Amino acid sequence: MDKILRIDMGAKGGPKVSEGPLGDYAGLGGRAMTSSVVSKEVPPLCHALGAENKLVIAPGMLTGSAAVISGRLSVGCKSPLTGTIKEANSGGQGGIALARHGYAAVILEGKPSTDDLYKIYISKKGVKISVDNSLKMLPNYDLVNKMKAEYGDKIVCISIGPAGEMKLGAASVAVTDMETRPSRHAGRGGVGAVMGAKGVKVIVIDTADSKIRQPKDAEKFKEANRKFTEGLRSHAVTGQALPKFGTNVLTNILCEAGGYPTYNFKEGSYKDGAKISGETFAEIETKRGGKATHGCHTGCVIQCSGTYVDKDGNFISKQPEYETVWAHGGNCGISDPDTLAKLDFLDDNYGVDTIEMGVTIGVAMEAGLLPFGDGEGALKLVEEVGKGTPLGRILGSGAEVTGKAFGVERVPVVKGQALPAYDPRTVQGIGVTYATSTMGADHTAGYAVATNILKVGGFVDPLKPEGQVELSRNLQIATAAIDSTGMCLFIAFAVLDQPETFQALVDMINAFYGLSLTGDDVTALGKKVLSMERDFNARAGFSAKHDRLPRFFSTEKLPPHNLTWTMKDEELDQVYNW
Amino acid sequence: MDKILRIDMGAKGGPKVSEGPLGDYAGLGGRAMTSSVVSKEVPPLCHALGAENKLVIAPGMLTGSAAVISGRLSVGCKSPLTGTIKEANSGGQGGIALARHGYAAVILEGKPSTDDLYKIYISKKGVKISVDNSLKMLPNYDLVNKMKAEYGDKIVCISIGPAGEMKLGAASVAVTDMETRPSRHAGRGGVGAVMGAKGVKVIVIDTADSKIRQPKDAEKFKEANRKFTEGLRSHAVTGQALPKFGTNVLTNILCEAGGYPTYNFKEGSYKDGAKISGETFAEIETKRGGKATHGCHTGCVIQCSGTYVDKDGNFISKQPEYETVWAHGGNCGISDPDTLAKLDFLDDNYGVDTIEMGVTIGVAMEAGLLPFGDGEGALKLVEEVGKGTPLGRILGSGAEVTGKAFGVERVPVVKGQALPAYDPRTVQGIGVTYATSTMGADHTAGYAVATNILKVGGFVDPLKPEGQVELSRNLQIATAAIDSTGMCLFIAFAVLDQPETFQALVDMINAFYGLSLTGDDVTALGKKVLSMERDFNARAGFSAKHDRLPRFFSTEKLPPHNLTWTMKDEELDQVYNW
Repeated sequence: MDKILRIDMGAKGGPKVSEGPLGDYAGLGGRAMTSSVVSKEVPPLCHALGAENKLVIAPGMLTGSAAVISGRLSVGCKSPLTGTIKEANSGGQGGIALARHGYAAVILEGKPSTDDLYKIYISKKGVKISVDNSLKMLPNYDLVNKMKAEYGDKIVCISIGPAGEMKLGAASVAVTDMETRPSRHAGRGGVGAVMGAKGVKVIVIDTADSKIRQPKDAEKFKEANRKFTEGLRSHAVTGQALPKFGTNVLTNILCEAGGYPTYNFKEGSYKDGAKISGETFAEIETKRGGKATHGCHTGCVIQCSGTYVDKDGNFISKQPEYETVWAHGGNCGISDPDTLAKLDFLDDNYGVDTIEMGVTIGVAMEAGLLPFGDGEGALKLVEEVGKGTPLGRILGSGAEVTGKAFGVERVPVVKGQALPAYDPRTVQGIGVTYATSTMGADHTAGYAVATNILKVGGFVDPLKPEGQVELSRNLQIATAAIDSTGMCLFIAFAVLDQPETFQALVDMINAFYGLSLTGDDVTALGKKVLSMERDFNARAGFSAKHDRLPRFFSTEKLPPHNLTWTMKDEELDQVYNW
Repeated sequence: MDKILRIDMGAKGGPKVSEGPLGDYAGLGGRAMTSSVVSKEVPPLCHALGAENKLVIAPGMLTGSAAVISGRLSVGCKSPLTGTIKEANSGGQGGIALARHGYAAVILEGKPSTDDLYKIYISKKGVKISVDNSLKMLPNYDLVNKMKAEYGDKIVCISIGPAGEMKLGAASVAVTDMETRPSRHAGRGGVGAVMGAKGVKVIVIDTADSKIRQPKDAEKFKEANRKFTEGLRSHAVTGQALPKFGTNVLTNILCEAGGYPTYNFKEGSYKDGAKISGETFAEIETKRGGKATHGCHTGCVIQCSGTYVDKDGNFISKQPEYETVWAHGGNCGISDPDTLAKLDFLDDNYGVDTIEMGVTIGVAMEAGLLPFGDGEGALKLVEEVGKGTPLGRILGSGAEVTGKAFGVERVPVVKGQALPAYDPRTVQGIGVTYATSTMGADHTAGYAVATNILKVGGFVDPLKPEGQVELSRNLQIATAAIDSTGMCLFIAFAVLDQPETFQALVDMINAFYGLSLTGDDVTALGKKVLSMERDFNARAGFSAKHDRLPRFFSTEKLPPHNLTWTMKDEELDQVYNW
């Protein structure tokens, strides 16, 4: 990982490929890399779909090495959805494949002057970029099949669906998993629209002759990796709950806690929650011959993914994540697992963020476009996005635009990005993260649910404002660092609870790079990343006034706890005051 | 004008009407009134379509008196289009009718809990408010006919069309003219959507038994009014050009100057400009038996309006204004006057801002939805708005949302509001106004075109940045004051050039209210209004970073002068530094 690949899509005479050393970006990975490049090279007031924006695709610091669960791939740019800086990261094989070809980052720059669609082929022999208009408007699954037919099975694809080509705000960047399915997504913030604006449909990475990255100190690395693995396996969340039921283990827990946003954030517990719980999904998967325990990339030791099949054993989608099941499910009053799996597939296939899409359909239901609970109607709406009809373009632009087009007041977004699956009124720590994150509403930016609900890393009462700012602050700092390592964020459960597991992670980085970092250095890295992002956002016009939740959270009580959002603005403004 | 009418549309048991004295708002009119109320009573971070927003409808200080050309009606709120404070004002009879019933403001508050649609009937006997769901989705012209059938001919209507009911960002508030046609509009910023959110379709004002407002010093008032009238009649713009050719006299002038945005701001002069000039429209109108010289409200002494009829003499629309002819015409490459008049009518009928609508169609053309020059296609698009189809909802939400739905980079908006008919690259003073106005891009907020192009109030070279900030600042201050008097902004030409006409205006206000204001007091009023607005916007999250033009003005040269926007940000930031 000693080089950066830059492709100027706007060069005269066609795209220009150049490779160079890391320079100022040496030692950076994942979110630290994407946010550094965007912060330094992208004018904050540029149009997100314009030539001045850049799409930065970067494996984490440890990605491509033997470190377990280190395969995350960060995708960064100025977001067309939020207008802020954006990093969305994904599982799948993309990070590993790029890292093992030596790329610390692929940066797509400029803007083509024609409507041609390009594919980029990266192999041991170098980079080849070519026009392929036969790929236009192909859904991700069809696209990947076509690429396999063309380049063989040993490939990894990083691609966009029709939504990305249409440059819609909910468009994701898809990354193929171990089965070469485009099931993992850098979902949030419309990163797929920026890839679409660059005219790039797919980056195909041929994994032949790529090499595992070697640590500086192999012995120490191996030992740290072993301890780290042990730590993950011994923690109740990562060792038991996640492998058994996947992320969707949260449905029952959040319904129980009254923090599960239902019917577009009108209630805090879904009466049919059990019908769409992780337990139910795992049971269906096991019974039908799908998989309930599976990894999304090689080297995963948590195995929270799975495969969802129909009654005849045919693939419907990957095991839908908790956020997806919530967004399309409880949030829309839809309780049929098959329907939810189909929605998950459609989202992946057309290339849209499942959170944004589900919340958007909830807003459409609020507008009266279809009733809450109408699963068939929801499927049709996502089909509209794939077809690019006017209605599909509204929905594919996300919840905020949909709210504008249909005159809806209750639109759960912060900085234009849809709120995830935890109601801020009853999981108040995550409310602080939603409001203040540099990314718009984003649960992964500082997952206070861990401490508010799961009692990981201590306990802060989710129903009270006290202590939430400090909790969110510390988690946002830690997350910015973890997102830079290439590690799956789910390591945080064990790392927060078990000091020796955290130490093993630090040891692993030190052994890999020949460094002697301490825990404080990790904190410093997180703060540095956040500060860069915050600075970009300030230059883009964001201020404390944008670190707020929509007003209806302050005025409407959420059953069953009947609480409103009462966090004081002055307290929110202390999140970045460290 | 000694009372304020408040209607709480969200009161339990149905709308609650209350009338009260002016209190803190005594002596205010027009924009000073609307911006004072909004600034003081509306939480800046509220949702524009929510219960916390208020729609303030206020005649000017002199409206309803014998002062000539003083009939403007201001409509203010937090804008759903821009998120800023908003004041849009309109000609027509609405201001006069309200003022002569003694109302300094009508304030619509709260939000109904049902989908019922209300009409408000104001007469000498008081205020009556009732549900009338038979009015749902009626276009403005049909609505007014229905109201005339119900209440007789001596009424004035302030209403919304289907766009307002759908709460779309381009929705206007229509005001009937002297012929009781809903042809005058408070167009900008989606004020109609806020009226729609309040559930109010129409305010019908019965003019029977209403009284002209009397000045404190009748003699002095009469004399000042006479001098003022003389001043307007003796100035070349208000005495000759505007009465003869209407506002559209500007088409040839701006094409000549290279400042006429053509094909969605790609060129600065329209080859077919002469075909849609004010001269051409006046010729057609005169030949066919329409009217080329006409006032939009009683007491107008400029008479820049008119009536456009078809070949058989049937009414098509009022004489379309310059901005309308430009937005739908040169901006979209459409050069048929009949088509433009039809577009004007459709906009008025469905209740959308003609500037926002025309620029939006230009963006749709840029997206490839229809070719530039397709007049029939443009008519169909506006029909979609009226029908409320998904495509219509996109377009009716304005240029910014349309740009998002269709992935367009070149979207000419500031703070979400479409740029009017002067290219900032070659009329640089107006560029400063667009960027820095408290209202989003708005030519009327500080009409630097006067001095840049028409050489009124001196001359500042339109092609150079020098002097534009000071010019725009002074005009924005003067405009904020004029918008508070109820005077039509077109008095500014004579007021800027002729000190005695300005003095006559001040004398008129003094005689009416028994005051002894000087010119400095007028300036102070303007500054006070702007400061309030600016403060509201700051509390709503707007900062210097939002006082910028879209980037493409800085990167794309505009033929024929081949200039880019080169105004320095630091200079823009000096506009409010007085």
